[in-house]
Amino acid sequence: MARWEPGARERLVIAAVDLFTEQGYDATTVTQIAERAGVTKSTFFRHFPDKRELLAAGQETLSRLLAEGISEAPDSATPLEAVGAGLERASNAMGPMNRELAPRIKAAIDANSELQQRDALKNVGLAAAMTDALRTRGVPDATARLASELGVLAFKQGYAQWLQAREDAALAPYTLAALEDLRAASRSLT
Amino acid sequence: MARWEPGARERLVIAAVDLFTEQGYDATTVTQIAERAGVTKSTFFRHFPDKRELLAAGQETLSRLLAEGISEAPDSATPLEAVGAGLERASNAMGPMNRELAPRIKAAIDANSELQQRDALKNVGLAAAMTDALRTRGVPDATARLASELGVLAFKQGYAQWLQAREDAALAPYTLAALEDLRAASRSLT
Repeated sequence: MARWEPGARERLVIAAVDLFTEQGYDATTVTQIAERAGVTKSTFFRHFPDKRELLAAGQETLSRLLAEGISEAPDSATPLEAVGAGLERASNAMGPMNRELAPRIKAAIDANSELQQRDALKNVGLAAAMTDALRTRGVPDATARLASELGVLAFKQGYAQWLQAREDAALAPYTLAALEDLRAASRSLT
Repeated sequence: MARWEPGARERLVIAAVDLFTEQGYDATTVTQIAERAGVTKSTFFRHFPDKRELLAAGQETLSRLLAEGISEAPDSATPLEAVGAGLERASNAMGPMNRELAPRIKAAIDANSELQQRDALKNVGLAAAMTDALRTRGVPDATARLASELGVLAFKQGYAQWLQAREDAALAPYTLAALEDLRAASRSLT
């Protein structure tokens, strides 16, 4: 695995995930997270408004990558092909940190309803970003919303399968295969 | 509009929505909600664990109705026809209270990120309930998840259109028309 040197933001996420794992989300304070990461509390607040936002940290970047992939797909791409291009762009940005932290992030979310709520809203945000990008391509509204939901489902499902795969596997083949499964399911629906 | 006499649970929801509208969600306490509803704080806590859960109050009932409609659809029904039966069952349970409170509930949610998160998780819960009911009918996993997402989108969209419609309009035609639009969009995707 490539060497990877975390900055303050990454150290905060790692410290938080460690503390959530050790002592639970509710018992963990911002002060403890900052101490464990070796930064001040004000550094914490430069990066995150509160501890809940910490686990949704990637949402903005992920939204941007999904939207960029969709926007830059060839004019001839169908809506689902454009979504596939978005998934590929976003998948290729996921690296060893995601791979390493994901199981513990998932455990923290599974154990806490506040985090489940934040996570659900993250997925709504990703779908909205894709829908906007598809609409800009001239895709009709209902089709754009539907294609985006398929994109979110494919990303979630591909990501989960990737975490079970060999350590050096790339994410993109998993998210794209999940999208293809959903496309087939979609055909069987109509 | 039919006369409708709210019980303690409904009075709590109405009082909360009124207070959220008047003074915002963050500034509103459980004590204030109970007082406005004319009940004790312990009555509040018999109905809801906290003020955030209050706006997701219908989730369990709605999940049950959607699942029942799906389970009781004829054996010959396709997955989307079963989802339509679920939507019809759930839609027919929505009455004047929903109609009256919905715009203010929406305003409260739009104004508060905590409530947006809770609302997003509510939709995840509705989708999960439909997916389980479809799987029990023998629908393959990917198809069941996809059909459920279409069901959630159709319910949300039909509900929003219903709120714009004549006061005595029934909800079911709106949710079923939205499902039909999504089915057509789904065909255009594949």
